[in-house]
Amino acid sequence: MSLMIRSSYVSHITLFQPRNSKPSSFTNQISFLSSSNNNPFLNLVYKRNLTMQSVSKMTVKSSLIDPDGGELVELIVPETEIGVKKAESETMPKVKLNQIDLEWVHVISEGWASPLKGFMREDEYLQSLHFNSLRLKNGTFVNMSLPIVLAIDDDTKEQIGSSENVALVCPQGDIIGSLRSVEIYKHNKEERIARTWGTTSPGLPYVEEYITPSGNWLIGGDLEVFEPIKYNDGLDHYRLSPKQLREEFDNRQADAVFAFQLRNPVHNGHALLMNDTRKRLLEMGYKNPVLLLHPLGGFTKADDVPLDVRMEQHSKVLEDGVLDPKTTIVSIFPSPMHYAGPTEVQWHAKARINAGANFYIVGRDPAGMGHPTEKRDLYDPDHGKRVLSMAPGLEKLNILPFRVAAYDTIEKKMAFFDPSRAKEFLFISGTKMRTYARTGENPPDGFMCPSGWNVLVKYYESLQESEAKQQAVVSA
Amino acid sequence: MSLMIRSSYVSHITLFQPRNSKPSSFTNQISFLSSSNNNPFLNLVYKRNLTMQSVSKMTVKSSLIDPDGGELVELIVPETEIGVKKAESETMPKVKLNQIDLEWVHVISEGWASPLKGFMREDEYLQSLHFNSLRLKNGTFVNMSLPIVLAIDDDTKEQIGSSENVALVCPQGDIIGSLRSVEIYKHNKEERIARTWGTTSPGLPYVEEYITPSGNWLIGGDLEVFEPIKYNDGLDHYRLSPKQLREEFDNRQADAVFAFQLRNPVHNGHALLMNDTRKRLLEMGYKNPVLLLHPLGGFTKADDVPLDVRMEQHSKVLEDGVLDPKTTIVSIFPSPMHYAGPTEVQWHAKARINAGANFYIVGRDPAGMGHPTEKRDLYDPDHGKRVLSMAPGLEKLNILPFRVAAYDTIEKKMAFFDPSRAKEFLFISGTKMRTYARTGENPPDGFMCPSGWNVLVKYYESLQESEAKQQAVVSA
Repeated sequence: MSLMIRSSYVSHITLFQPRNSKPSSFTNQISFLSSSNNNPFLNLVYKRNLTMQSVSKMTVKSSLIDPDGGELVELIVPETEIGVKKAESETMPKVKLNQIDLEWVHVISEGWASPLKGFMREDEYLQSLHFNSLRLKNGTFVNMSLPIVLAIDDDTKEQIGSSENVALVCPQGDIIGSLRSVEIYKHNKEERIARTWGTTSPGLPYVEEYITPSGNWLIGGDLEVFEPIKYNDGLDHYRLSPKQLREEFDNRQADAVFAFQLRNPVHNGHALLMNDTRKRLLEMGYKNPVLLLHPLGGFTKADDVPLDVRMEQHSKVLEDGVLDPKTTIVSIFPSPMHYAGPTEVQWHAKARINAGANFYIVGRDPAGMGHPTEKRDLYDPDHGKRVLSMAPGLEKLNILPFRVAAYDTIEKKMAFFDPSRAKEFLFISGTKMRTYARTGENPPDGFMCPSGWNVLVKYYESLQESEAKQQAVVSA
Repeated sequence: MSLMIRSSYVSHITLFQPRNSKPSSFTNQISFLSSSNNNPFLNLVYKRNLTMQSVSKMTVKSSLIDPDGGELVELIVPETEIGVKKAESETMPKVKLNQIDLEWVHVISEGWASPLKGFMREDEYLQSLHFNSLRLKNGTFVNMSLPIVLAIDDDTKEQIGSSENVALVCPQGDIIGSLRSVEIYKHNKEERIARTWGTTSPGLPYVEEYITPSGNWLIGGDLEVFEPIKYNDGLDHYRLSPKQLREEFDNRQADAVFAFQLRNPVHNGHALLMNDTRKRLLEMGYKNPVLLLHPLGGFTKADDVPLDVRMEQHSKVLEDGVLDPKTTIVSIFPSPMHYAGPTEVQWHAKARINAGANFYIVGRDPAGMGHPTEKRDLYDPDHGKRVLSMAPGLEKLNILPFRVAAYDTIEKKMAFFDPSRAKEFLFISGTKMRTYARTGENPPDGFMCPSGWNVLVKYYESLQESEAKQQAVVSA
């Protein structure tokens, strides 16, 4: 997400006029569980707020926004039933998951897609594809812009036959859960791609990685997993579920939560924006607005900065004090990235409602990318926030458009863009930033804290080394 | 629309359980105007019901379904203002309309797309594209599945400059109205096509005829037309506006209106279905259900039967008594055809709400066609009615799925398909019917009334004659 958005009138966008917010009423009863989480960002806060830990076994009331559908979905089998369920699953037909399937199992099982309780059956799929929303039994709508579906091939379909339930096998070979009361229907890839991306052009990363090689059938059903999904990549402690995040927000007595989705390193322009947002929420009367800094942790395209590097960079930014750890939670959003622009940004926002966020910051061209075959942005850079502001089911979320930040060459720091002295500002896009880091050139002072910048420089150095080695192997 | 739908469980579809119907309450006040209409189908009825004409100048109350947005849009300038408005329009930048643009002006100006008051501005366009619906100021949704937009090229955009209003020039060269408070925005054809059709494959008739050759900009604004759109093709008397249709339904004291959209000749299977529908509505307690037999009159693809031939065929069917003229209104629906399947069928249904229909009959693969480059249906034949039954803004409409009708070779007539003696039924698709007519072969007795069939045979004979002449010219 770059900071190049220019200020312009955006109709229907509520700027700091909260919708359905309840800054002082405490309506939801949530049972707070002690977290055995090792997320160092949380520890950083705990060190400064030791007294807060004392409430961690109490039942506290929450002022957080309601999850979609009214109740947070959690699909992890209770410990007492795991034995029986595991034995049962051994007898079921098996569906083998790939890495992105597993990321979706993770997402669904923790309730990011609440009220969705499993991979979509056809009616849900069709509503998602055509209306970007699902109608609930009470007649209201929840947003659901991306089809969350599981593809199977002809052989697997045949093996399933008329079985009602199937076992889900993770890439490492273990059965991790099951899908119940399944429904199998045709996977029309062309239609799915066209309606989700607004193009069928070759070169869409998620499509090439995941959809094109997938089977001709989709299987929907109710999901159950035996235990929380872990990746054992040294980053699991950053992966807080919506329930854990809600507990943490309540623990900090947040009366407003503003979410910032990102898949790029954090620079001082981001920090300026986030700190400014908190300031404005305080001015609005909120007592303790908390920032959810929420990097996406699932599939990303090859030239994005990898998750582990980004997490290290984010940790330096917090250590450096650019963001206040006391009012910031850094956690990983487990969804894979679609690069589907206006369709995907709705998913990014909706999932954060389920994690307790009632404010969502949206920038220029969210979830966008260059057109894979034409020299232009795939999406109109303004469409993301416009579509988001009009999306069914997101009425209760307050959309906060980015203010334009750029490098102020006089003040030598990132600052909100002042059109009256436009020439004194330098716009540094994500591409430019990556070019700096790759070529070993330093960005202007004050663009990013030096410790965070070093993480990126080291990453690109290691990348060049491994590329050089590969080339050496090829030439040998 | 063929009759080949097989009976199968369709979830969420209300079969003869009316939603929000009000069979006996009279809530809407409509001022009934005497119609100077020459639609022979209406005259056919008037001859049999002379007494009904006597109420034509009274104010009667209506029990019809409310139009979308609560009020029927009509955008025809009052007679007293025409002079001023025409003079004013002479001074405005001009936008030249083609034939399909004009069909849309017709559609919008008569309120088929209520509450839409002109060609879409960008916010409406985005909502239509992403959500198939528009959010009203009161927070409710109306269905709006097709982008109703007007394209202009670079030169026209430049000529318009910063003008607030533009004059609309019909293909014959006259100014027919204006678009006010205009907004010009980018026409991303690829995205529009992908999201509307679910494919970007070459060979989509509406795309090739209308979108591909169109300009790179869309212009939205409030529409005004100087007088009702006429085509002077001898069929204008069939083109009743939603207001005229509502008046006619009230005149006949209809307490239920069931609409049947078609773009093919009517055979006895259709007639069986329509008569059966009326019977079942009577059984439900309605006193006078009226059928709106509503052939589409705008752009259709080259191999469809032309409108004038279809209208002649429909008139024979009514003369023949296959349908009861007393409880049937035949009128032309002025919209152009998209062949956009599940997306378009919503438009077909929504427009009929505005004309007063509270029941809508939907068949197999509505608004569908073969995939232009692959050997399969473009859409899953079941998706149309499923999407329709779940569409936002259509909750108040009762969706009536087709029952399967086929030719009963024992009884020698069209009958509802009986699976217990499947072998005795013959399915005659639209393609098969056209092949019969083209080759001069007669379909089985009882498939269509002979006078209606003759209309088709003559049409295909004339087609072959003109083809033969063209070939002669080419060889000469």
